[in-house]
Amino acid sequence: MRRACDTGPQLNREIDMRVGFIGLGSMGLPMAQNLLAAGHELVVYNRTRSRADGLARSGARVAESPGEAAAGVEVLLTMLADDAAVEDVIFGENGALPALARGAIHVGMSTTSPALARRLAAAHAAEGQSYVAAPVFGRPEMAKAAKLWIVAAGAPEVLERCGPVFAPMGQGVEAVGAEPSSANVVKIAGNFLLAAAIEAMGEAFALVRKHAIEPARFLEIVNGRLLRSPIYESYGALIAAERFEPAGFKLKHGLKDVGLALEAGGEMAAPLPLASLMRDHFLSAIAWGWADIDWAALAKVSAVNAGLAR
Amino acid sequence: MRRACDTGPQLNREIDMRVGFIGLGSMGLPMAQNLLAAGHELVVYNRTRSRADGLARSGARVAESPGEAAAGVEVLLTMLADDAAVEDVIFGENGALPALARGAIHVGMSTTSPALARRLAAAHAAEGQSYVAAPVFGRPEMAKAAKLWIVAAGAPEVLERCGPVFAPMGQGVEAVGAEPSSANVVKIAGNFLLAAAIEAMGEAFALVRKHAIEPARFLEIVNGRLLRSPIYESYGALIAAERFEPAGFKLKHGLKDVGLALEAGGEMAAPLPLASLMRDHFLSAIAWGWADIDWAALAKVSAVNAGLAR
Amino acid sequence: MRRACDTGPQLNREIDMRVGFIGLGSMGLPMAQNLLAAGHELVVYNRTRSRADGLARSGARVAESPGEAAAGVEVLLTMLADDAAVEDVIFGENGALPALARGAIHVGMSTTSPALARRLAAAHAAEGQSYVAAPVFGRPEMAKAAKLWIVAAGAPEVLERCGPVFAPMGQGVEAVGAEPSSANVVKIAGNFLLAAAIEAMGEAFALVRKHAIEPARFLEIVNGRLLRSPIYESYGALIAAERFEPAGFKLKHGLKDVGLALEAGGEMAAPLPLASLMRDHFLSAIAWGWADIDWAALAKVSAVNAGLAR
Amino acid sequence: MRRACDTGPQLNREIDMRVGFIGLGSMGLPMAQNLLAAGHELVVYNRTRSRADGLARSGARVAESPGEAAAGVEVLLTMLADDAAVEDVIFGENGALPALARGAIHVGMSTTSPALARRLAAAHAAEGQSYVAAPVFGRPEMAKAAKLWIVAAGAPEVLERCGPVFAPMGQGVEAVGAEPSSANVVKIAGNFLLAAAIEAMGEAFALVRKHAIEPARFLEIVNGRLLRSPIYESYGALIAAERFEPAGFKLKHGLKDVGLALEAGGEMAAPLPLASLMRDHFLSAIAWGWADIDWAALAKVSAVNAGLAR
Repeated sequence: MRRACDTGPQLNREIDMRVGFIGLGSMGLPMAQNLLAAGHELVVYNRTRSRADGLARSGARVAESPGEAAAGVEVLLTMLADDAAVEDVIFGENGALPALARGAIHVGMSTTSPALARRLAAAHAAEGQSYVAAPVFGRPEMAKAAKLWIVAAGAPEVLERCGPVFAPMGQGVEAVGAEPSSANVVKIAGNFLLAAAIEAMGEAFALVRKHAIEPARFLEIVNGRLLRSPIYESYGALIAAERFEPAGFKLKHGLKDVGLALEAGGEMAAPLPLASLMRDHFLSAIAWGWADIDWAALAKVSAVNAGLAR
Repeated sequence: MRRACDTGPQLNREIDMRVGFIGLGSMGLPMAQNLLAAGHELVVYNRTRSRADGLARSGARVAESPGEAAAGVEVLLTMLADDAAVEDVIFGENGALPALARGAIHVGMSTTSPALARRLAAAHAAEGQSYVAAPVFGRPEMAKAAKLWIVAAGAPEVLERCGPVFAPMGQGVEAVGAEPSSANVVKIAGNFLLAAAIEAMGEAFALVRKHAIEPARFLEIVNGRLLRSPIYESYGALIAAERFEPAGFKLKHGLKDVGLALEAGGEMAAPLPLASLMRDHFLSAIAWGWADIDWAALAKVSAVNAGLAR
Repeated sequence: MRRACDTGPQLNREIDMRVGFIGLGSMGLPMAQNLLAAGHELVVYNRTRSRADGLARSGARVAESPGEAAAGVEVLLTMLADDAAVEDVIFGENGALPALARGAIHVGMSTTSPALARRLAAAHAAEGQSYVAAPVFGRPEMAKAAKLWIVAAGAPEVLERCGPVFAPMGQGVEAVGAEPSSANVVKIAGNFLLAAAIEAMGEAFALVRKHAIEPARFLEIVNGRLLRSPIYESYGALIAAERFEPAGFKLKHGLKDVGLALEAGGEMAAPLPLASLMRDHFLSAIAWGWADIDWAALAKVSAVNAGLAR
Repeated sequence: MRRACDTGPQLNREIDMRVGFIGLGSMGLPMAQNLLAAGHELVVYNRTRSRADGLARSGARVAESPGEAAAGVEVLLTMLADDAAVEDVIFGENGALPALARGAIHVGMSTTSPALARRLAAAHAAEGQSYVAAPVFGRPEMAKAAKLWIVAAGAPEVLERCGPVFAPMGQGVEAVGAEPSSANVVKIAGNFLLAAAIEAMGEAFALVRKHAIEPARFLEIVNGRLLRSPIYESYGALIAAERFEPAGFKLKHGLKDVGLALEAGGEMAAPLPLASLMRDHFLSAIAWGWADIDWAALAKVSAVNAGLAR
């Protein structure tokens, strides 16, 4: 598998492009702002139109439909909640697919299924368009700071053309092959590893707490001396303090992502018992009313199950 | 919870002590060598006597029984396979308990149960002796390089007296309270976190492999950009290469340790479903003949379960 | 919840109806034969037309499309593999929905999702038609012997009109309410209980075998004296003898059904960890090439995991 | 494996024996009463002496120690809580082992580990005594009604000599071989199957309840038509009504028994993931204060996890 050279801003900043952007959520909005700031010509679409007001004031054009956002652009980016939302804007009424020009590129940056990537790749190919999957690692504050990590897959020459668009949004692009779905698999498996770290800390913290040991002290030793991971450190601190609001990434989205891992495992007959276990814990969390707090609250399920919380 | 200041060698090196050492396995032998090199007066005992030959040549006295190794020392260290082995040398025939002097300290460095720590603390107290639990994080090569992390718990003044003994074996001591069993809980919960990282990588690697993505490339992205943990990096490399021999830490000992986590959870009514899952996978690994390869082979169970290996 | 009185044949046999039947698989074919034998006027559709030959010789009309099978009938039965297959014949090209008369009833007898039941109920209502969900318990030989148990849900007056159609196919109808999806939930939860019995026997048999006890002897005691269930007896015998061919119900369909349970749990935030565990085992079974043997082979996964089989 | 012919009372009632009985709990007391009523000469021991008062009034002799209960008897029965309690009365102070005559038989009727059976068999053999493991299926009311099922293992000629003792306590004896531990394995695996049925119903009931279906109605269909097991019927009724008091079999004993299954699996490298799952649920139940209610409350854990109860 080949790795793209880092898309240095020096390389790409000057090449301004016509870019469509659909989906101005907590991730999409700062990503679009960075594209605009980098000099790209931007047309945006969002179901709730008011989210686009700031961008409009900064020079973006606001489209009335996905199709309008797709018409005439070189690259169309989508950053939406899930498979259904992407299918809706691409295949639905006034959708992007028929509006997008031959030769244009759709870059799907949402965390969606490999199956959808295959479907999109085929649909765009049938229209003479290209599809690139380019999901991102990073929370909203990293999107704002242009510190996302972009995992991209698609035909090499098409990926290269995306460079000027990726550059202003992230700190690097990791190319993982010509098959778009590969990028989704990497993203999904990566989120699974993050969730697994949260689950493991949740259980370990419940264990040490029941033995009268402070989780923060425990983490200081085990992460401080052994794992030495900033992810364990930041999530561990949230969990130890039970500080799950405001949500950086909502628990219900964590459930969605572990569901994507199970689906991706299912279609290839790869059992993921740890993902199964986490799905069950996420469901309890939802049943207990935690859908909209941070997904680190997955760890609190273990505390409840040990009688430490309610 | 108070943290011990790092036991600087400048502080302790000059205070040579009479030290007993029981258990010259792959960890115990280099630990004993470092104690001897530091100038301590050492008497050692090992069931298989020949393991002590090198130490004898370097000036250690070789005892014929645990009791003989305990007689007359200020500090008695034990570094053995499991609870049963410790119980045997302390409470068994020609055992250390009656031989150890009043005022002396037993430092249990094995990965054993909190329940045993409580039993030892009571038994030693009844003899006017002290018990410190001080299990270590680190594999044999770290023991040799005096790079262990020592997690210690016991009465503060007793812990302080152990400083000159800890200093030549590790790169630091983490004190976790006055109750010896606390150190065992931290060690057990720590090993659980390491095992969980192996399990999670095993499942994630199976998933990406079934989608035709190289695990090493996947790890490069997810650990290289996000987790950034040297533990994930080193274990991930072993797993990606399926390089489980020679064993740094045998799979059967991993099973023992996850069993200790489940036992420690059980006595306090803390369910640890991820530990349960890993125990089940460890048992399959044992059933398939992998007891003596590296415990990173836990990850290979997920490959077998996905039809990727046998 | 009200229970329908058993639909006695004496009551209904004389009321012959025009019936459409879509899906002549191993279950559908004998069901259609029984309907024909009972005197109903039958039009059938199957993707593979040759499956309908025997019925045609016995007087059924063979339709060229789902729509043709639906046109002019009072009751349209569907007995298909999964949600997608049902959606295809109802909503797809030349589908049944627009062809079915106002006032007619669609009876979905497949094991499908509650979500699909809700979608079908709404779609049929919009056309002035009725939807009844009526999945069945029973394997092909029971379908042939008209010994199915039919779990039905729908508006009471509509259910009553289905009586003459249900009577020749089963030994009884269990009505579970006015909401069609309820019947699917009962069927799915019921299949989950059957799968759970297989899983439990698989693990118990592995345990006793490793202790040199014959599973058949074990089952004779525990089922013979305690559980006393014909289901445990028949599946237990298959498992003890490892006789998984020919398949009464294919393992891949078992995976589908446990997936329906997980989906039904997911939409209501009900975690089903035992279903999760079974899904993981089913996936291993698929990965090992067992998709088309009997789903009782779920039990063999536990044998493999204990090193008793490959 | 050979099966003992049912021990007909006609055969054995006349052969009165000198019998020792240790452990007069809710099971042991009615069992001892039945032995006394059958004409056996009984000496009993119980830690809480007052439990023996009724038996004393009916003619039993009350011993002051396990050893005294063992001295001079032909058969010594033990019916105690767990491995530790059995070890205590056999190997402990004033224990039964040295007091039992050469040629006498110890019949262990408790639900204990195969490992203990092996240890007892060896210890008794060394004293010229015999050991039979004969755990029972049945709750206290069945013990009272002499309706227990006795699973026995030991040397055939020794088992035969136990006939007159087994006959008045149960409705049949199931012999499972010459190795005493085999009886424990069958009992443990049997209890695992019962627990699995409870767990499965717990999850299924949570699923149907969240879909607005009455568990009792669901069970009526699935057990009434398919499983047809009196065990599902009786436990299902308790679970549907959430009637967990008074406890027929306490939840904490259920945890002990699933622990025995896991231990028996562990020593032979047989993973039992469903047992693992149930242990985790039992632990939550204990953490939530349910130790002393009926073990059918295992099912309620699934209700809590689905947000249906607290």
